[in-house]
Amino acid sequence: MARKSANAPFLRNAWYVAAWSEELESGLMGRTIMNEPIAIFRNAEGKVCAVEDRCCHRGAALTAGKVVENGLQCGYHGLVFDGDGKCVEIPGQDMIPSIARVKSYPVVEKQEFIWIWMGDPKLATPETIADWSIHDQPEKYPHRKAVMPIKANYLMMIDNLMDLTHLGYVHTKTIGGNPKSHVAAEMETVRTETGCKFIRWMLDAVPPPTYVKGAGFTGRVDRWQEFEYVIPGAVRQWSGALEVGRGARENRDQEGFHLHLFHAITPETETSSFYFWSAANGYRQDDPQATEELYADTYPTFIEDVEIMGKQQARIDLDPYRPLLTIRADNALLHARRAFEEAYEREQRQMGAAAAE
Amino acid sequence: MARKSANAPFLRNAWYVAAWSEELESGLMGRTIMNEPIAIFRNAEGKVCAVEDRCCHRGAALTAGKVVENGLQCGYHGLVFDGDGKCVEIPGQDMIPSIARVKSYPVVEKQEFIWIWMGDPKLATPETIADWSIHDQPEKYPHRKAVMPIKANYLMMIDNLMDLTHLGYVHTKTIGGNPKSHVAAEMETVRTETGCKFIRWMLDAVPPPTYVKGAGFTGRVDRWQEFEYVIPGAVRQWSGALEVGRGARENRDQEGFHLHLFHAITPETETSSFYFWSAANGYRQDDPQATEELYADTYPTFIEDVEIMGKQQARIDLDPYRPLLTIRADNALLHARRAFEEAYEREQRQMGAAAAE
Amino acid sequence: MARKSANAPFLRNAWYVAAWSEELESGLMGRTIMNEPIAIFRNAEGKVCAVEDRCCHRGAALTAGKVVENGLQCGYHGLVFDGDGKCVEIPGQDMIPSIARVKSYPVVEKQEFIWIWMGDPKLATPETIADWSIHDQPEKYPHRKAVMPIKANYLMMIDNLMDLTHLGYVHTKTIGGNPKSHVAAEMETVRTETGCKFIRWMLDAVPPPTYVKGAGFTGRVDRWQEFEYVIPGAVRQWSGALEVGRGARENRDQEGFHLHLFHAITPETETSSFYFWSAANGYRQDDPQATEELYADTYPTFIEDVEIMGKQQARIDLDPYRPLLTIRADNALLHARRAFEEAYEREQRQMGAAAAE
Repeated sequence: MARKSANAPFLRNAWYVAAWSEELESGLMGRTIMNEPIAIFRNAEGKVCAVEDRCCHRGAALTAGKVVENGLQCGYHGLVFDGDGKCVEIPGQDMIPSIARVKSYPVVEKQEFIWIWMGDPKLATPETIADWSIHDQPEKYPHRKAVMPIKANYLMMIDNLMDLTHLGYVHTKTIGGNPKSHVAAEMETVRTETGCKFIRWMLDAVPPPTYVKGAGFTGRVDRWQEFEYVIPGAVRQWSGALEVGRGARENRDQEGFHLHLFHAITPETETSSFYFWSAANGYRQDDPQATEELYADTYPTFIEDVEIMGKQQARIDLDPYRPLLTIRADNALLHARRAFEEAYEREQRQMGAAAAE
Repeated sequence: MARKSANAPFLRNAWYVAAWSEELESGLMGRTIMNEPIAIFRNAEGKVCAVEDRCCHRGAALTAGKVVENGLQCGYHGLVFDGDGKCVEIPGQDMIPSIARVKSYPVVEKQEFIWIWMGDPKLATPETIADWSIHDQPEKYPHRKAVMPIKANYLMMIDNLMDLTHLGYVHTKTIGGNPKSHVAAEMETVRTETGCKFIRWMLDAVPPPTYVKGAGFTGRVDRWQEFEYVIPGAVRQWSGALEVGRGARENRDQEGFHLHLFHAITPETETSSFYFWSAANGYRQDDPQATEELYADTYPTFIEDVEIMGKQQARIDLDPYRPLLTIRADNALLHARRAFEEAYEREQRQMGAAAAE
Repeated sequence: MARKSANAPFLRNAWYVAAWSEELESGLMGRTIMNEPIAIFRNAEGKVCAVEDRCCHRGAALTAGKVVENGLQCGYHGLVFDGDGKCVEIPGQDMIPSIARVKSYPVVEKQEFIWIWMGDPKLATPETIADWSIHDQPEKYPHRKAVMPIKANYLMMIDNLMDLTHLGYVHTKTIGGNPKSHVAAEMETVRTETGCKFIRWMLDAVPPPTYVKGAGFTGRVDRWQEFEYVIPGAVRQWSGALEVGRGARENRDQEGFHLHLFHAITPETETSSFYFWSAANGYRQDDPQATEELYADTYPTFIEDVEIMGKQQARIDLDPYRPLLTIRADNALLHARRAFEEAYEREQRQMGAAAAE
């Protein structure tokens, strides 16, 4: 068996978040995904398109150009490409050869995300995009979003989210709380068709500062964290708490503290990624200030993750194949890694079969 | 046939601009050419010399030393080298072994340039240095000069100069003018003994801002651009315009707008270069302010080229062997590349023959 | 015979200065030595410990954690390691597997130094640590210390200290003095059991500014410099001067100018190092201002060395195997290099023998 790298390989036939819709305000932006520089633009009809950020003429970056009526115009000699990557204009000549094109990527704009498909376009399946219906209900779930560059392999962030015992060590200043109570939390993990899922219960616990501020708790709470990993790079989170005695385990869907987060990790290179997150206020929806406070609390908390992962990757880089020690707290993390690896092996077999045809 | 890289190789038996004379004011400077760090200095007799910027004793950079009576003195332990690279002094010993020397380079200072020969010194031919007699007539052609680092292979700059359709896309704010008029310009390209040459005519055209400011045009003009490429890294340019009806095609040498530029590109590494340029005011020679304005307009214009080429090279770096698309506007560019490639192949054959002797 | 690189290899079974004790004020610090990132910490009992700066669980940097009662706690998921690298706590589980450990390094804190052993811990011999008893007598030898990063292989700094003819070229502004007098100095070099040693005499010499300021000389002096190299990275220095006629050659230990320096060089990578130095005032011990002035003079002087060596290494990097020219002034340098090489070859043979057992 081949030795395994701590740096997960790229799963290609899958959807990744390329950007937030709001990042594309100027109409044109660049982002490198899986080592491929990509130009993302909104065409004259308002549709988001993604093409290779390299002109087929002399190799100039198309992001140095501009969006025009019929597509994206190169800023060097004026060639224009449509959203399918087809060249539709070459200044000074009428005939456009069929080889005049750049690679294009399937893109879906939905629920404030711009999703991109990095594999074979013929296999792209918009119906498998991870749903985040929270964004469809902005009044019920007011929210704010961010994107953070991470100097780590994309699955390091999945690892992070799948082992919440880190809260007591990394996030001592905000959502951490007592490390022992995190470690002692009841934890149940199950595999799902698209990844895995866990729910953690911290019963009769002291609510952390963010929770008290959010829901006005005066006593102890029953606190839960539900995390669902969707291969390869998405995690849906529902964290919350009810006062002890409200019967949280039987019915969580009562008034109390409710936090809905979506995490999406997109690989930039083997050892760097983009971390997109959206945090929805599910407790004081009528109070815009509460949503701002949630964002203002979450931002530095996630920066703590970004920093520890950067230092982790620097060490992993010394020898990515060096074995890591498995501990009990890794349970959900291992489920997630295994789910990812099975998907990756499946893709490798498919690619092998396709190549052999 | 071997696949061709977009990054041109180094032509060695050729003259390159190492520096402007005015850059050597302090008497000693360093510059890396073709990956070789070189110390350029003016010796006690006033002659410009160039030697390897590495002491043969302990490897210190000679540019950290100083010019003394008998040559260039290492700033670490005081060895002195003359302009031929011969060690002429070793502190603490009288005998200087014949192996005590550093590599030296043929250098010619002429017409404000310091030219350097990067190949076999025995083959150096000062008579083949590209002439720029404009610099011999400072009153007739008042001029200013600059040097800009470019993060691109040196021939990318030749490409840039050989395809002026980029003016309408890259230089929209200054000398660009209407893109269509550039694309539609009449263009005639011929090979020469030392490279190639084109002349472009834009007849009955609206003069761009720089031209109006320079020559006071009130109506439309006949505008020309004559560019001559001299292998490997020089381009002589004569751009100008006369009012429509003055018979520019029959005789350009009349009072009007006349701009004389010399462009020289010197490879620093495979993917970075130095861009030397000199711009001469051939229209309001008695007005020093006009020369300053010409420089002040040209500088940001050429910075636009520097920026687009940096982004182009970043894409080329992803795979220098990936084919590029040829379009009609590339005509002169292809002539220049072909002329260069023939010279390079000739040099390779000569080197092979010399090695076989 | 294999070609020799100017970049000396790492001698592993040896003591290196990892840090000054005073650098560990916060109780935890990181330093990379021989490409190995190391966490240095003072445990609850006050003992200095050094372990690999990489948690065996998920690879996080232990320097991102903190010192706790029972050792160094990882800042990601809370595992704790003692000074021997043994994991003593895993949150959430009682059983700690024996493979749960990180590499540890023998460390000795002595005379204000933190010494580290980079080779086989079984071979560590604290009794061979280079002694610097000057630090045991702070009243007789008031002193100040510094650490400077150097962008050069560690033996380049030994070369520097073993050839003092550089003083007249590199340190013209401070301790340099007349280059010729340095070159003409009487010099005697001998091999020692642990390296080599030289003494240089500059008789009837004009004292340099630092000396005049320090000891109030009004006339000429007899000046000496005694340097002892201790393999692999330490140099003990005693420089001084007495007025001419005081009989310095017969007895140096009289009132006059006395400077005691300890230099220690620790390899960070093949081409970068840490330079630790301590300068003791042995001439106006009751005057704290004199000690500060000594430090203030020495600091920029050694920065000059750091700068010239950075430029030297940049040239060496172009081809570390390219031969260097030996000159007469290299005598002590060659003794030191030879002593080092013999130690290195001895270590290689021992390692080969150990591997064959």
